[in-house]
Amino acid sequence: MTGMTVAGTERLLYDQVARVVRGMIDEGSLEAGQRVPSLRNMSKRLKVSISTVMQAYAHLEDEGLIESRPQSGYFVTGRASLDIPAPRRSRSQRSPRRVRIGEAVQAVLSLANNDDVVPLGVANPAAELLPTRTLTRLVRDVARRYPRESVNYSFPPGDPGLRREIAARSTGILGAVSPDEVVITTGATEALMTSLSAVAKPGDVVAVESPAYFMLLQIIESLGMLALEIATDPATGLRVDDLCKAIDQIDVKAVISNPTFHNPTGSLMPDAEKQRLVETMAERGIPLIEDDIYGELYFTNERPRTLKSFDTGGNVLLCSSVSKTIAPGYRVGWVLPGRHQDAVMAKKHIASAATASLPQITIAEFVRGGGYDRNLAALRRHYGDQVRRMRAAVAEYFPEGTRVSEPAGGFVLWVELPAGTDSMELFNQAMAHRIGITPGNLFSSSGKYRNFIRLNAGHPWDERIEDAVGTVGRLAAAMQ
Amino acid sequence: MTGMTVAGTERLLYDQVARVVRGMIDEGSLEAGQRVPSLRNMSKRLKVSISTVMQAYAHLEDEGLIESRPQSGYFVTGRASLDIPAPRRSRSQRSPRRVRIGEAVQAVLSLANNDDVVPLGVANPAAELLPTRTLTRLVRDVARRYPRESVNYSFPPGDPGLRREIAARSTGILGAVSPDEVVITTGATEALMTSLSAVAKPGDVVAVESPAYFMLLQIIESLGMLALEIATDPATGLRVDDLCKAIDQIDVKAVISNPTFHNPTGSLMPDAEKQRLVETMAERGIPLIEDDIYGELYFTNERPRTLKSFDTGGNVLLCSSVSKTIAPGYRVGWVLPGRHQDAVMAKKHIASAATASLPQITIAEFVRGGGYDRNLAALRRHYGDQVRRMRAAVAEYFPEGTRVSEPAGGFVLWVELPAGTDSMELFNQAMAHRIGITPGNLFSSSGKYRNFIRLNAGHPWDERIEDAVGTVGRLAAAMQ
Repeated sequence: MTGMTVAGTERLLYDQVARVVRGMIDEGSLEAGQRVPSLRNMSKRLKVSISTVMQAYAHLEDEGLIESRPQSGYFVTGRASLDIPAPRRSRSQRSPRRVRIGEAVQAVLSLANNDDVVPLGVANPAAELLPTRTLTRLVRDVARRYPRESVNYSFPPGDPGLRREIAARSTGILGAVSPDEVVITTGATEALMTSLSAVAKPGDVVAVESPAYFMLLQIIESLGMLALEIATDPATGLRVDDLCKAIDQIDVKAVISNPTFHNPTGSLMPDAEKQRLVETMAERGIPLIEDDIYGELYFTNERPRTLKSFDTGGNVLLCSSVSKTIAPGYRVGWVLPGRHQDAVMAKKHIASAATASLPQITIAEFVRGGGYDRNLAALRRHYGDQVRRMRAAVAEYFPEGTRVSEPAGGFVLWVELPAGTDSMELFNQAMAHRIGITPGNLFSSSGKYRNFIRLNAGHPWDERIEDAVGTVGRLAAAMQ
Repeated sequence: MTGMTVAGTERLLYDQVARVVRGMIDEGSLEAGQRVPSLRNMSKRLKVSISTVMQAYAHLEDEGLIESRPQSGYFVTGRASLDIPAPRRSRSQRSPRRVRIGEAVQAVLSLANNDDVVPLGVANPAAELLPTRTLTRLVRDVARRYPRESVNYSFPPGDPGLRREIAARSTGILGAVSPDEVVITTGATEALMTSLSAVAKPGDVVAVESPAYFMLLQIIESLGMLALEIATDPATGLRVDDLCKAIDQIDVKAVISNPTFHNPTGSLMPDAEKQRLVETMAERGIPLIEDDIYGELYFTNERPRTLKSFDTGGNVLLCSSVSKTIAPGYRVGWVLPGRHQDAVMAKKHIASAATASLPQITIAEFVRGGGYDRNLAALRRHYGDQVRRMRAAVAEYFPEGTRVSEPAGGFVLWVELPAGTDSMELFNQAMAHRIGITPGNLFSSSGKYRNFIRLNAGHPWDERIEDAVGTVGRLAAAMQ
């Protein structure tokens, strides 16, 4: 790849301008109906050309944040300052429960995983946002250059080249990481499955956030363990105080947390809380499994720290994958299992013997060539835009009393509908319109979140998506 | 592909001649030391050219079955009629046991999975026997033609094209099979793991053959189930009578069987026994998981029937993959789960969300184009030769009192060393010579088979392999 293109540099510039305006709106220094600084004024202030500011404003207009009025300039739209509140803080369970959501999840996914359904259900990136063309070129090249490696087993811990790349990237985030500390898995799902089965056994109690990604609950269910749901805050995620209280009373054998852009709430634990969580679990000797699959998808300026970055004794098992960032169909994930390395390797071996070789080598080449970083930069922009627009659409179309999360990364929204709204019924009605949504009760082992839904904003904003959000909102309104 | 090449046709012809001679040796109409029919005689008898017979005899000489004596023609060697006996019949366990072999297996595999170790340990096909070049061409073509499908999830039950091909092939063996009855998995390991976890739960008793493939035992261990080992016959496999007695006394929740070219013994259950096993388990309502991974690798003229082919009520879950026949590194396997379809799909989803897309589409194309059948024909010939030669080498180099299996398919040998021989010690000594073998005690949950080893004959016979077998034999002899 040659350096950045002229178009790329321009894009970078007007992105910066757009970010400044968004910041002003977010902070409230620009309110709905107010005039946005003129092109000339902004051009001077930020020392960029007028045409750059024009591009930025056009982009913000596309997003629905500002609107141009003939002869008068740009104004902040009603959509921009959403006075829609966040969902309420959740509560902890008193006692652990056997999970029984598998069938419900299966039923929902089998309906929603369908090309002719509007994809607001499954948390999927849109194929057009993925680096499909580069990957196609790379995988063809890799197949030609490594024919034997492609057909042969790549036994755990997995392809050495890929482990080197993951270690190198992780080193920035975690301090020094060696390739020997990385175990490749068949996506993050297998990473989480092998990690949990490596540190706990059937009948054990596992603490999770409430709500929790349904796949985590299904893994707990599948392994015959019990789930203990711990309260979360819509902004700051897991309430460590509540977790500490719970483990004083209940013999918790493992904790799974998704601290950075939580699925489904989008919450981000502050560093201090992350550190406290890591230290407390280390003291108690309770293994801490970190789901970091959305960690790279921040809308702010800086990658949030991982729990693992606070880990000194190898008590944190970090799980991630490229399924939300490069190619879900490649099924490449990994664990940094800390002191549970041997146990995770053994479980990985039993789970699927090895991970497919060609996808591993291809992802390694993609990361090595800088494609990952380039694609991440683009994805952060896209997901940020899409989340913002979907939030605005929810504010516009959903019934009075609706609350919605305000994630600083990832690409899902957590929508709290007025009390009493039945999201399974809403799911069925939406499916009749060929629109997929995920009902909230899938995110709990105890039937909570019946009046919540999760919306996927992983697809580029267009009329079809906006219409679908509108339809779901109207269906929800009609149920009041 | 254009039709068969001239070289291919010749090969087919001389293979037929070689098969006739092997048959005569096997049946005893040609004994060690006897003269093989002359070139002219055989050419007339089989209506082929003298040069074809010459090529066949040269091939049989390479195999060590016959030898040319100057001026006198060809004679059957001493190796041909091995009077080495088969291992003894195994015995059933009285009571189920918790399995604890995971660490031992991990230790052995981590040493043996190494390129500079002679590959007599892991049951691996040699890369040079795999259709690497065709696959490389195909995968590059598929990546170009299906860029979106390659990067996107291929959610359970998996790629429709591949399921069609598997259903079409299975239809020949099983009666009519629909693509909807196929669930794609990440290799046979995941197929077995998801099948067992779909039909039994932690604490349940699972009946398996004794000895059993260590991965099956590890899966039982990992799921917190108990193993009940049932007696086997070296030729006819699982003793159904013994299984029936055991389930009268013990509440067995599932049976796993590897009835065709059993790993490690190579045994083949006769059709009548297969049928009885299927019908008995159906009557008792005990799910029957069939490991059919070696089923296509028969040295005889006909594919043996599967247990599944006798199944009328959907009680059999057939598991297989292309790891022994096309490409282990592609990680493509499948389950035909019968009436357990929904449960297997759910477990597959939790295990790894999906199987990598590109390998699935490529394997579908390979099968569709006839490559699978062509490669299977070649593999059967190679594996047959290799197994025959390794058996002869074991007869030649191993100590008095050694017994060895005589598989009619697959590519592993099960070697019973004189009582008291410690195969873990033999493993360690062989590793010091950079030779991998698999110690017998990995094939039991109860420490049996301490004086057995499994040898992999998946690699083309050459001096390095022969020397390695000789070295292991001498090491074993020195331990007597």
